[in-house]
Amino acid sequence: MVLEVNVKNISLSTYERIAIISKDIADKINVRAGDRIKVRTNSKGEIYIVEIDENNEFIDSSTIAIPKKYSIFKDGEKVRIRTAPHPKSKEVIKKKMQGFELNHEEIRMFVEDVYRNRLSRVEIASYLTSVQINGMSIKETISLTKEMYKYGETLSWPWHWKIVDKHSIGGIAGNRTTPIIVSIVASAGLKIPKTSSRSITSPAGTADTVEVLANVEFSAEEIKRIVKKTNGCMVWGGALDLAPVDDKLIRVEKPLDLDPEGQVIASILSKKKSVGSKYVLIDIPYGDEAKITNFNKAKMLAKKFKIVGAHIGMVVESIITKGHEPIGNGVGPVLEMIDILNVLYGKGPKDLREKSLEMAGIILELTGKGSYDTAKEILDRGKAFKKFKEIIHEQNGSLARDLYNMLGTYTYEVTAEQDGVVERISNNTIVEIAKRAGAPSFKGAGVYLYKKLGDKVRKGDVIFKIYAESERKLDYALEVMNEQKPYFITKKKTYILAEII
Amino acid sequence: MVLEVNVKNISLSTYERIAIISKDIADKINVRAGDRIKVRTNSKGEIYIVEIDENNEFIDSSTIAIPKKYSIFKDGEKVRIRTAPHPKSKEVIKKKMQGFELNHEEIRMFVEDVYRNRLSRVEIASYLTSVQINGMSIKETISLTKEMYKYGETLSWPWHWKIVDKHSIGGIAGNRTTPIIVSIVASAGLKIPKTSSRSITSPAGTADTVEVLANVEFSAEEIKRIVKKTNGCMVWGGALDLAPVDDKLIRVEKPLDLDPEGQVIASILSKKKSVGSKYVLIDIPYGDEAKITNFNKAKMLAKKFKIVGAHIGMVVESIITKGHEPIGNGVGPVLEMIDILNVLYGKGPKDLREKSLEMAGIILELTGKGSYDTAKEILDRGKAFKKFKEIIHEQNGSLARDLYNMLGTYTYEVTAEQDGVVERISNNTIVEIAKRAGAPSFKGAGVYLYKKLGDKVRKGDVIFKIYAESERKLDYALEVMNEQKPYFITKKKTYILAEII
Repeated sequence: MVLEVNVKNISLSTYERIAIISKDIADKINVRAGDRIKVRTNSKGEIYIVEIDENNEFIDSSTIAIPKKYSIFKDGEKVRIRTAPHPKSKEVIKKKMQGFELNHEEIRMFVEDVYRNRLSRVEIASYLTSVQINGMSIKETISLTKEMYKYGETLSWPWHWKIVDKHSIGGIAGNRTTPIIVSIVASAGLKIPKTSSRSITSPAGTADTVEVLANVEFSAEEIKRIVKKTNGCMVWGGALDLAPVDDKLIRVEKPLDLDPEGQVIASILSKKKSVGSKYVLIDIPYGDEAKITNFNKAKMLAKKFKIVGAHIGMVVESIITKGHEPIGNGVGPVLEMIDILNVLYGKGPKDLREKSLEMAGIILELTGKGSYDTAKEILDRGKAFKKFKEIIHEQNGSLARDLYNMLGTYTYEVTAEQDGVVERISNNTIVEIAKRAGAPSFKGAGVYLYKKLGDKVRKGDVIFKIYAESERKLDYALEVMNEQKPYFITKKKTYILAEII
Repeated sequence: MVLEVNVKNISLSTYERIAIISKDIADKINVRAGDRIKVRTNSKGEIYIVEIDENNEFIDSSTIAIPKKYSIFKDGEKVRIRTAPHPKSKEVIKKKMQGFELNHEEIRMFVEDVYRNRLSRVEIASYLTSVQINGMSIKETISLTKEMYKYGETLSWPWHWKIVDKHSIGGIAGNRTTPIIVSIVASAGLKIPKTSSRSITSPAGTADTVEVLANVEFSAEEIKRIVKKTNGCMVWGGALDLAPVDDKLIRVEKPLDLDPEGQVIASILSKKKSVGSKYVLIDIPYGDEAKITNFNKAKMLAKKFKIVGAHIGMVVESIITKGHEPIGNGVGPVLEMIDILNVLYGKGPKDLREKSLEMAGIILELTGKGSYDTAKEILDRGKAFKKFKEIIHEQNGSLARDLYNMLGTYTYEVTAEQDGVVERISNNTIVEIAKRAGAPSFKGAGVYLYKKLGDKVRKGDVIFKIYAESERKLDYALEVMNEQKPYFITKKKTYILAEII
């Protein structure tokens, strides 16, 4: 049975993609709350999960209310509604649950159904849990990457450009190598249209940090203009619609705290493909509090990145790096930007400087543009800093901002209770303190680490300092230390543990 | 941050347990759509998933709108709201996903969180998928059964009563032994407060079928009265709140088509425990279209039922029965009731009669009240029929109804295209035809099978007849046969393949 009703776009924010219809409409098309309906005009259609207004409290019987965010219809537009058929990929989810390998066609169907919103979040949760438990073969990962790449916006560039990119698997506080690497490789003549994420669960994403100085939200056209002018950019990927399927999956992965490996590879590489990258360096931090806790798993992951990359025409290299402590001294957008600027000035935290140089060096080698030494020269001669300024300028930003003035004024210095050597720093505890202090929504909040792994400390030395948005947030941040210890004791440090080519 | 608002109970039916707050309230307590909030007064509290009215289109900023079905508050009641902490059992779900066995305390936490609505349906979906893939140990199943039994209504009886019960794993059309077994064992002096389900995905549940003649919705007090008077009842379990946790889990299992074994055992036995059963016979139909398709799995399942039963003080026996074709001739509420009455009259389909007698016989043996022969005598002497009438009478029903007059008048007879012997009947296809014809919501719809496995047929013989609610539904039912064949060819039949004691 098909019924005609009028659309009312409402400003309700919901987790599930719902639409509200009245009780008698629901009865006529024989649906119950939670069922799927198809809503369409002659030219377009969309699928929603039904909520039912049993007493016409919100809408009358000739109306369907659709949250604006999910609506593709105009207010008052006449639409036909009927029950939606079961999406074909329900069988695909079942097959994955049973432990079978999916073929390309099945993955194509699943990705299309996610894109077209034919699956409920409950069904997607079941799929992701199945993938988390049963894993994904290389073949499946390749298919998934190719299919996810099909949807969403893409950037295209002159065919002879060497588009390079880098990505860090994440999880390590202060790991803000991107602005430094972008500045070095762009200065060396490579093209790096770098899109980054904002923080989801960390005290700062690269986009949050760059935003301390410049705008990070640009359209595809604007990005092209910036990259054509400066060879690089440092923008927020979320402003583009690069990976609509991935975005929908992430909305379910996050609350469940899921991160299935095959999904991670497909997510990263399909996005890199969308921005046109040809050479990609992946940073896989490994450590007991990093996302990857096992060295052999990190190696396996690096290999998979390489193979999947090859299948989509991309040269992908990975490095496994030490993820045992935050990188740099600052944790939080402004504090991280201070570190970055210091490195670009030729000073700054040694670990951030070295990691950035080594990564930039590998990218230069991959593309025949040089090596670590080239990167070092570009940095030390101030060329990287000049390039950084250029890009910031093109992103409507300026270096004239007084960063120290942006820092939270509610501060607390944590001091050493005894002499010794820093043996262990809990990345997670530092992250938690910085977030509670107000990062990243308040950019000046965070933690500044005066001591890193292997540093000698004397009783009374300041180990780290908390910058909070308010007194309440400072108290809240300090409470963490009642339960988790941020600092312990040690010996020496090296950064890149292995380089996988 | 805690805020005070007024409750407005709304008549919105939703799949997720949501509550709607305004944008500025959401900002103040720092929640986004899909987050959890705790809503409470001094004496009670409840958790909801947030939807946000961004523009105060539906509610003002001093109001929280809660669907009546999920509300524990009065209209206008003042409540405090704040973000809800992450439920502890999120870690439990993760552990299960990683393949570890859960201990009793973890299962207790999970069940409590489900009961208190602390978990979203997306989280429950992830748990159920994990259990489906990783399975559940006997220990876990015992813990789950005990914990699920803790919540919801219970029936209590004089301590010396021998409360018996039976349950069929389901999936076989027409498998309506319950009214016959209840009548026999109640007549033998045993107490059988039988609660049954309505159809969820089949053309008729026992409750739908009994409802053809009598009322099936009674309170716990009324059930006690009926059983005290007649020794038995045949009511709809859904009218009682026997298994609130199971009900919440089933709301997620159904759309995902999940049926994890440990969950099934815990669900059945905790409910049996709630109604006070001490001796339970489980019918496990096995066949290529039954829920259990593998004989050894059926045996394993029977053993698990026995062990878990023993741990909650219940004697549980199982029989593995042939589930290769529908039981009886009728499929659909009225047609099945006609079969039942015919058996009680001493006639009726032989398979339904024999299966009921064998099962009743086992229950009589278990309780020292007799055997198959006792059951046969009770049936053949008309005592079971008399008991059946008594119970129907107590349930405000009557046998005076003209069942044939209730049948759908839009009918179609399917005839044999050639001579032969019925070799295979597709249970699923018959089920689909009966449902499309209008069963169970229209009680007179269904399929009547004139030929069963092993029957000889001649070209032109009527094999089965469809009774539909309307011409449109009849056409819709007939369409099934374009895709799936309901009937094929064969040899002989036996019912109980094995009896597991």
